[in-house]
Amino acid sequence: MSLIKLPLLKPLKIALLQLSAGANKQTNLLNVENHVAEALKLRPDTDLIMLPECFNSPYAVDKFREYSEVVSVKDGETTKFLSNLAKSNNVFLVGGSIPELDPVSNQIYNTSLTFDRNGELIGKHRKAHLFDIDIKGGIRFKESDSLSPGNKASYFNLNEFGNIGLGICYDIRFPELAAIAQRKANAFAMFYPGAFNTTTGPLHWHLLARSRAVDNQFFVVLCSPARDLSSSYHAYGHSLVVDPNGNIVAEAGTDEEILFAELDPSLLPTVRSSIPITFQRRFDIYDDVASSYTPAAN
Amino acid sequence: MSLIKLPLLKPLKIALLQLSAGANKQTNLLNVENHVAEALKLRPDTDLIMLPECFNSPYAVDKFREYSEVVSVKDGETTKFLSNLAKSNNVFLVGGSIPELDPVSNQIYNTSLTFDRNGELIGKHRKAHLFDIDIKGGIRFKESDSLSPGNKASYFNLNEFGNIGLGICYDIRFPELAAIAQRKANAFAMFYPGAFNTTTGPLHWHLLARSRAVDNQFFVVLCSPARDLSSSYHAYGHSLVVDPNGNIVAEAGTDEEILFAELDPSLLPTVRSSIPITFQRRFDIYDDVASSYTPAAN
Repeated sequence: MSLIKLPLLKPLKIALLQLSAGANKQTNLLNVENHVAEALKLRPDTDLIMLPECFNSPYAVDKFREYSEVVSVKDGETTKFLSNLAKSNNVFLVGGSIPELDPVSNQIYNTSLTFDRNGELIGKHRKAHLFDIDIKGGIRFKESDSLSPGNKASYFNLNEFGNIGLGICYDIRFPELAAIAQRKANAFAMFYPGAFNTTTGPLHWHLLARSRAVDNQFFVVLCSPARDLSSSYHAYGHSLVVDPNGNIVAEAGTDEEILFAELDPSLLPTVRSSIPITFQRRFDIYDDVASSYTPAAN
Repeated sequence: MSLIKLPLLKPLKIALLQLSAGANKQTNLLNVENHVAEALKLRPDTDLIMLPECFNSPYAVDKFREYSEVVSVKDGETTKFLSNLAKSNNVFLVGGSIPELDPVSNQIYNTSLTFDRNGELIGKHRKAHLFDIDIKGGIRFKESDSLSPGNKASYFNLNEFGNIGLGICYDIRFPELAAIAQRKANAFAMFYPGAFNTTTGPLHWHLLARSRAVDNQFFVVLCSPARDLSSSYHAYGHSLVVDPNGNIVAEAGTDEEILFAELDPSLLPTVRSSIPITFQRRFDIYDDVASSYTPAAN
């Protein structure tokens, strides 16, 4: 894949599918298929469809291995499903995330797959920052009990639209993935499939999305699962599209919903020439940013 | 100065002086002196007083040289004034910023000076990112017409309280200065004297402050000039204190005002153990963050 450093050249029409996922994988995939059809019926000119984190399985540490699959357009059930879905509908597809089984290492990853209009797998990101948190009176969750982390920042090329960066959920708390996508690939947007919850969502969901947008002067797109109070994990919902000025241009509620938005390329040069931070960075004085004091000293 | 890597060890009681500055330097300094006295009369246990950006001069590109002074406890009028103010009142003093004349190069800087309780100059920061923006229908300003930029990220030690980082106004748009203060000095707070305006203030003032707080899980303190509609530059006001969770704990209006707050050290370990991003960073995959594609390509 050639990463030509293009800005966004034409408007990108997107549809975010804020869906629930239950215990039955087939039912989950069928739900995706039905909502893709519904989205394209409502807006036939949609260019890109995005799914939420863990759309084919429950979001639960003790379930990831059971639901995990190899990533393979030939042999992976969900990979094949997504590839066919993109191709048969002639859309780009940001495939949320699924539990991935690495057949060599036998490790499990939280992995996002992106496909072009031909069903070609054009991007793969393994969640690099695992969701290990413990908020007293709020939520405790430890992905690293069953998952392994990915080892790269990810960005992909969407042909005539330019480049996007992609992170998964907790990755958004680490500014570097978005910064790298903007700085190295001139990405016009950062996509995060993400299942925040009813504790961390109200605290930081909008703030983090708007912050990544303003610091990089690009679009930020968050696709959450719908909130399902019968599941063990209560997703926040509120799938979100933020423009390069930090303004929220589209936001979902908490139930299953299709959220449409158009990413307008004319905003990028306007915002970046008005407040030209993308050209004013002082990389000559940032050397110290790429490491830390010894955490144990805290 | 030894930069022992301490977290905040005891509560820091601060007072932000949101003041206007007119054309008369003596009047401006007297206004500072009177408000310091007023703050300490209201809260005699105040540990640290902070002044706004450009508190001794108008904020105007064509005035900076006229008002500029050398930084010298012996020979600099405002340096001496601040040093005496800190010593005579036994407080730490974050001296907003002043136009500094470098007697060797003859260049002018936007410079912040910090003093300890003995009046010793313990920190100096020259604004590293100059405020050059042009928002159509909003504001045009070009500091670089008369100012030169500083060449470092800055952090200082406040004795028993631990370390703070410091940037000036537009510096806040560049996440690295705050990140370096947290990562290299384990700073418990970032201080920004800053004069946003009535265009950029409503857009980004709160967002940027809360974002730097949440990304670094430390306090963020912004001290603005009061809004003076008779001056050429309309400061935003809204001096602000944000806690490590991104919550606003104190906020001023737009007029002259003394804003008090207490930075509670117990919040740092609580926030940092709940959502442990300060220990979970993946410096092994951030290499690409410290440089950019060639801006000309945009």
